[in-house]
Amino acid sequence: MDAIVANGFVAELIRQIRAQDAFGAWARKSEADLLEPYIVDREKRKTIPIIGDPDPDIIERVEMFYRAIGLAVEKRTGLIASPMLKINHEGFGRVVLLAGNLVVLSKHLRDVHRFGFETIEKLEAEGSKLTDQAVLMIERFPEVAKL
Amino acid sequence: MDAIVANGFVAELIRQIRAQDAFGAWARKSEADLLEPYIVDREKRKTIPIIGDPDPDIIERVEMFYRAIGLAVEKRTGLIASPMLKINHEGFGRVVLLAGNLVVLSKHLRDVHRFGFETIEKLEAEGSKLTDQAVLMIERFPEVAKL
Repeated sequence: MDAIVANGFVAELIRQIRAQDAFGAWARKSEADLLEPYIVDREKRKTIPIIGDPDPDIIERVEMFYRAIGLAVEKRTGLIASPMLKINHEGFGRVVLLAGNLVVLSKHLRDVHRFGFETIEKLEAEGSKLTDQAVLMIERFPEVAKL
Repeated sequence: MDAIVANGFVAELIRQIRAQDAFGAWARKSEADLLEPYIVDREKRKTIPIIGDPDPDIIERVEMFYRAIGLAVEKRTGLIASPMLKINHEGFGRVVLLAGNLVVLSKHLRDVHRFGFETIEKLEAEGSKLTDQAVLMIERFPEVAKL
């Protein structure tokens, strides 16, 4: 897939998805297949109800996205950043990425059952942007992030 | 109940439990009744299986405990500290208390289905201890806690 930047965020996400695949169920899946659930274009969005409960698969997917950001952050700073999610049954919530005692990223979530990106490029852009934000926060308060 | 220290942690926890009672279901309950689920003495512990799934009531109870710590922290520092829990179906997990971009408290949890304290005094002591720790962390990094 041409859209995937080498060593970019999406490449990290794919590594992360494959790493979760303990039983090899996805071993034959292409990168496009693995990314497919993350891509919600206009057509697909139309088929998703406006209000809906987030199922465990989607929550796992959101967590995977933020875990990939954590790994991208670790590559650039050497510090592990791990996500914590809090999502209520209506799909509202919050996700934070923690490194040591520092909240390196905090986002409020809504409509989690519609989580996704219009294109792979937009997924890459959002992942990179959030990674940059998290790295900046660590550079600002390294002492707290190393606690 | 003599064991409850005025303005202490347990008093805060009771206020917090009553505040959650939107429908007045517990209005006639005594303080002892409200605290009863938090007190797990030796006799009671014997009746709880060693391995068990934490049910939503217990998770709510753990969250309430940490929310009360957050409120106690707010009283002393003026900064809101709110909990985030991550508990897997086996009852292992982590709880953090966040103020701004600071993790003011972080604890790994295990055997959540057995969550409780032997006596009201021990509940008071643990709550006060954790509140003190969180306040110390805020005093150490006030800039991060105010972000």
